[in-house]
Amino acid sequence: MQSPNASSEERRLEVRKLEISDKNKGFIELLQQLTVCDSVTDKDFEDRFQELIALGDDHVICVIEDDRSGKIIATGSVFIEKKFIRNCGKAGHIEDVVVDSNARGMQLGKKIVEFLTNHARAMGCYKVILDCSVENRGFYEKCGFEHKAIQMAKYFS
Amino acid sequence: MQSPNASSEERRLEVRKLEISDKNKGFIELLQQLTVCDSVTDKDFEDRFQELIALGDDHVICVIEDDRSGKIIATGSVFIEKKFIRNCGKAGHIEDVVVDSNARGMQLGKKIVEFLTNHARAMGCYKVILDCSVENRGFYEKCGFEHKAIQMAKYFS
Repeated sequence: MQSPNASSEERRLEVRKLEISDKNKGFIELLQQLTVCDSVTDKDFEDRFQELIALGDDHVICVIEDDRSGKIIATGSVFIEKKFIRNCGKAGHIEDVVVDSNARGMQLGKKIVEFLTNHARAMGCYKVILDCSVENRGFYEKCGFEHKAIQMAKYFS
Repeated sequence: MQSPNASSEERRLEVRKLEISDKNKGFIELLQQLTVCDSVTDKDFEDRFQELIALGDDHVICVIEDDRSGKIIATGSVFIEKKFIRNCGKAGHIEDVVVDSNARGMQLGKKIVEFLTNHARAMGCYKVILDCSVENRGFYEKCGFEHKAIQMAKYFS
């Protein structure tokens, strides 16, 4: 039998898709822990949200909300790339995974990555890939990923 | 004044977007030099082609056709990922770049990467990224890219 505490914790750590009201729950502030992200206007947020919603299952952003604080404490995204290789196969790309610095050690990152990985698998992808720092390699290995290649980048701004 | 030869070569190496008729010009056979890609039926090719066309400028596949042989001898793709980070920024992802093994040393790979990079810039991306083997790092550095991270992958099939 599950204890009340376990049940409570399970509910608190549920992974769900991003909702438009999450902007007011600290979603952008959470992304600011990951990289450069100034404050976003409600209009810009809604426009981008609708663009992504229009892509349906081909681009999913998930979050974990702390139901005690009402804050978004973890997020990640995956989009589905349609290819000709691999017999017109599809590849999932995981991006922008971040866990609130105050919520580390609760396996939230693993939950996010598993949610995104399962989505890619369910979409029929032959693989799911992501880029990370050398420091995060161990974490993704625990999530079942293997080091495959190197990432090259060119910045315009 | 341009010599007739130079003019001829320039025409022959033009980068253009993938057309549906390119399946009969060796496009799939070229991809087979890159990775696993069995023969694709006309129906599967057309369906995937139309799916990609529907994405418009958000997913572009370019090719170089050898106008002497009528064969596709180089290709690459870029898709535009819409993000919330970087102030609702966009990132270009370059994928599936390959040059025919008989057409190496003609800077076709560089032309393809430049075309895709310019497209990402024109679409307002703040960066363009790609994954490659360690062996290809030098090539992409010549194209203006820098080594930034590592790629992790999980294969489903």
